[in-house]
Amino acid sequence: MAEYQHIRVEEADHVVRVTMDRASKRNSLSHDHLAELLAAFRAVAGTDAVGVVLAGEGPVFSAGHDFADVASRDLEGVRDLLTLCTDLMRTIESIPQVVIARVHGLATAAGCQLVASCDLAVAAEEAGFALPGGKGGWFCHTPAVPVARAIGRKRLMELALTGDVIDARTAEQWGLVNRVVPLAELDEAVDDLMRRATRGSRASKALGKQTIYAQLDRPEADAYAIAVEVMAAASQTPAAKEGMSSFLEKRPANWTD
Amino acid sequence: MAEYQHIRVEEADHVVRVTMDRASKRNSLSHDHLAELLAAFRAVAGTDAVGVVLAGEGPVFSAGHDFADVASRDLEGVRDLLTLCTDLMRTIESIPQVVIARVHGLATAAGCQLVASCDLAVAAEEAGFALPGGKGGWFCHTPAVPVARAIGRKRLMELALTGDVIDARTAEQWGLVNRVVPLAELDEAVDDLMRRATRGSRASKALGKQTIYAQLDRPEADAYAIAVEVMAAASQTPAAKEGMSSFLEKRPANWTD
Amino acid sequence: MAEYQHIRVEEADHVVRVTMDRASKRNSLSHDHLAELLAAFRAVAGTDAVGVVLAGEGPVFSAGHDFADVASRDLEGVRDLLTLCTDLMRTIESIPQVVIARVHGLATAAGCQLVASCDLAVAAEEAGFALPGGKGGWFCHTPAVPVARAIGRKRLMELALTGDVIDARTAEQWGLVNRVVPLAELDEAVDDLMRRATRGSRASKALGKQTIYAQLDRPEADAYAIAVEVMAAASQTPAAKEGMSSFLEKRPANWTD
Repeated sequence: MAEYQHIRVEEADHVVRVTMDRASKRNSLSHDHLAELLAAFRAVAGTDAVGVVLAGEGPVFSAGHDFADVASRDLEGVRDLLTLCTDLMRTIESIPQVVIARVHGLATAAGCQLVASCDLAVAAEEAGFALPGGKGGWFCHTPAVPVARAIGRKRLMELALTGDVIDARTAEQWGLVNRVVPLAELDEAVDDLMRRATRGSRASKALGKQTIYAQLDRPEADAYAIAVEVMAAASQTPAAKEGMSSFLEKRPANWTD
Repeated sequence: MAEYQHIRVEEADHVVRVTMDRASKRNSLSHDHLAELLAAFRAVAGTDAVGVVLAGEGPVFSAGHDFADVASRDLEGVRDLLTLCTDLMRTIESIPQVVIARVHGLATAAGCQLVASCDLAVAAEEAGFALPGGKGGWFCHTPAVPVARAIGRKRLMELALTGDVIDARTAEQWGLVNRVVPLAELDEAVDDLMRRATRGSRASKALGKQTIYAQLDRPEADAYAIAVEVMAAASQTPAAKEGMSSFLEKRPANWTD
Repeated sequence: MAEYQHIRVEEADHVVRVTMDRASKRNSLSHDHLAELLAAFRAVAGTDAVGVVLAGEGPVFSAGHDFADVASRDLEGVRDLLTLCTDLMRTIESIPQVVIARVHGLATAAGCQLVASCDLAVAAEEAGFALPGGKGGWFCHTPAVPVARAIGRKRLMELALTGDVIDARTAEQWGLVNRVVPLAELDEAVDDLMRRATRGSRASKALGKQTIYAQLDRPEADAYAIAVEVMAAASQTPAAKEGMSSFLEKRPANWTD
């Protein structure tokens, strides 16, 4: 694996754990930190890993953009930074692996956006979520994009306009995270969800995840136009054939991809 | 009424009950079963019925596509099957009647898609919901289309990626069904909701339902462009005139359509 | 301020309170009432106010359109009325101020639409919400537009098709309002939410609110295309510069706009 300065990348049992490792900077997302995260997710995409866990070292999951990095940039410089950040968020959605955010502490601004952009999220009871741009001078415009697509409109407005932190239970009720557990059980809960979310054919699931992101946010007729073509084509793959044969023959499936 | 092999169609008090009647096949949706359901909903559309209840015979509401039917088909054959299935789902949304799913047991894959596609749904406590393609080799691409539009994104991903069953109470919390009751009270709850959902002018309600599906999933300005024109035109119908007159004259309305 | 017949407009501490003052007509939205509300919101837009509270006098928040006004209009006349009503709803979303609905009682039809169109909403326990067109002859086509964007699809269908009233707690669970409190605490809760939602730079927040409405309901890639450009440009504003500088210098921010 590549050498990284700001993150750690470990793999076990086909699950890669990407850990933001800038605890002293509250895992804030400087240009170089974002670039390493993007490189890591792109590198995983080409491997046979089935899942990725995104975690953070230290007391905070991620505090979002690093103002020390942003403050010195002109418009083009910030535009480059936000384009890089958006590439990371969209790459998390487009890679074939199931991505779970392991949120042990505070996730704010682009850190909250990371949670919203992962396919699934498990949070410790100690976690909190906020779009703090609403309190200050630089509004959380891009974090609001995936957060709006996970929770309702009034709740988005409350998060975005007040900048206040919601706790993990509220985030679960609103649909921003899938599960909340005591911190001591966080890894176990992430592992359990990962195991259940990565069963079956990896190729089939990758196409499934990617097609869902393609059809979301569109009029239903447009969404069906996409999903019908993909599902018809998918029916002819080895994975689908094996899935149906094993079901009809009442035997365990044997996935080759 | 037409002769059907796989379904039963009964009518009482202007409410049609369509019952999937392939209990031995867990009401799985073979080509012929889908074709009969589509024919039945199309036939009801032209009648003066005000509502349709979609129910299932036997222990399971519907197990989704019939793999025995799918497995032997080539790409074009599966594409035809999925197009037929999508026609059924979209027809449920487009007919003038209010359609309520009566979910007494497990609704999986295209069976869960049926529940999501009905206007309203009432479930027994024993019911369960799943997109089991996530466990296997043929992902639930098309079922994810209406399910995504009923529940939040993270919850959709959990259903679609894990393939696990959620119980009826969870489905209610997530917004996939409107009401959960003990099995013994299921018909009463369906009848009550149907009665409340079919009051007033049938013509007005049909246009209302159809316009909602037309405006959903669009930018709000586009949605208003549709809704304003329809509502202005609707104001000149006999039903709207009678509705306003009866209100202003403080007398019961007398709907003629 | 302008002279109004149907509403009251008061200001204190940069927060404007617009009160619908047709208690005897249950604050129904006649043409002239809508025109005054629209004029008031447009007038506020150009001031340095940071927030608007929309309230209602008398037992009801608002009963929606005034049938006495609608019944005599032809298609063009109703179209004009609905266009005016839609202009009001969209103006609430587009003005730079944070708008909070203070819902003390029943909000039905276009009254419920008003609640859905405000950025935030606080309701008393006595409040209720309905789209009563579902009971009658003139369906709530346009109210369903913003209500659909605040709550789930099945819940929208239940509201729209049954016409029945949901209570404040249900509205909170469904995401139609942000907070429910006893009536005696309503003003305090509105003030608290307004204070939290209007902290920081007014210019930054206005751009934030407007950009959120621009990016909602679009495929995520389109939404990011909007949000990245806005956020990059916003980084160069005095408010963003001050926000970042004050954070890095660990001092309170001093907003000039």
